[in-house]
Amino acid sequence: MKPFPLSKVYQLIEPGPVVFLTTAAKSAANVMTMSWHMMVEFEPPLIACVVSNANHSFAALRSSGECVIAIPAAGLARKVVHVGNCSGRTVDKFAAFGLTPLPAKRVSPPLIAECFANLECKVKNTRLVTTYNLFVLEVLKAWVDRSQKAPKTLHHHGYGSFVVDGPKLRLKSAMR
Amino acid sequence: MKPFPLSKVYQLIEPGPVVFLTTAAKSAANVMTMSWHMMVEFEPPLIACVVSNANHSFAALRSSGECVIAIPAAGLARKVVHVGNCSGRTVDKFAAFGLTPLPAKRVSPPLIAECFANLECKVKNTRLVTTYNLFVLEVLKAWVDRSQKAPKTLHHHGYGSFVVDGPKLRLKSAMR
Repeated sequence: MKPFPLSKVYQLIEPGPVVFLTTAAKSAANVMTMSWHMMVEFEPPLIACVVSNANHSFAALRSSGECVIAIPAAGLARKVVHVGNCSGRTVDKFAAFGLTPLPAKRVSPPLIAECFANLECKVKNTRLVTTYNLFVLEVLKAWVDRSQKAPKTLHHHGYGSFVVDGPKLRLKSAMR
Repeated sequence: MKPFPLSKVYQLIEPGPVVFLTTAAKSAANVMTMSWHMMVEFEPPLIACVVSNANHSFAALRSSGECVIAIPAAGLARKVVHVGNCSGRTVDKFAAFGLTPLPAKRVSPPLIAECFANLECKVKNTRLVTTYNLFVLEVLKAWVDRSQKAPKTLHHHGYGSFVVDGPKLRLKSAMR
């Protein structure tokens, strides 16, 4: 993993990829699959996400105030589904699905070695947690694995239906 | 446009498509391009989005409490960029870029005829508007244009770089 500029983090999250979210509570790391997230600010990068209070990760995120967003390329699609279909209450998902935790630099939850990007985050705002399970995160440190060339991400359309990134378009634009 | 079940709206927003947002203030409709949005609840569908207070649409959204999220297929990519690169303060973007406003049923802002999906929304929660320009919207009515077969959406990667939907994957999953 190589450091990635915080000013470009939005280019990872804005396209709406399916991601993993890792947490750690009492030193036990866990990972869930997540698709409900968006950019909130460019820099420092702020990301909003919804983590259901039915998820085992909710309590860990709320109590520790830390997480890692790890972005898998399409080749990890089966692991994405497996991780999403069981709970950290009963399964060590890293071991069960062959995901390799790596130590993060600024937070306790681990990076995931197999993912092409990892974002170390702390919880920044919890005002909408009680109402909507909506957390606002600040990205403290970002990493990318440059050995994964032109990774294609996954986009969830419900019930195990995913769309993989297709052709690129470059248009002249003044938008960041 | 045909009605679309609110219970399936998340399948439109969750994949992270670039969308249009229409608003209306004092009967003048406007449209902007938006990529910072996410699902917050399945049903009734709640969508969070960030509309910068630098955008002309911000004041209309805040004062009227209404908008339409219109989802363009990839063929509209140039219009997406054009709409994002000018302001409704000085341009009638519907006329300038050949987008056809259609009356909505539950809100004042128009649908966009050229888009394959249109979501009529009211502002549901403004607690994070002052801090982050973050609105929580409730979808009141959803429409799809069934004549657009298997529309491919756009995902923005920054600075006019877009990825178009590619291959579909179907995996066995218990996730909604």
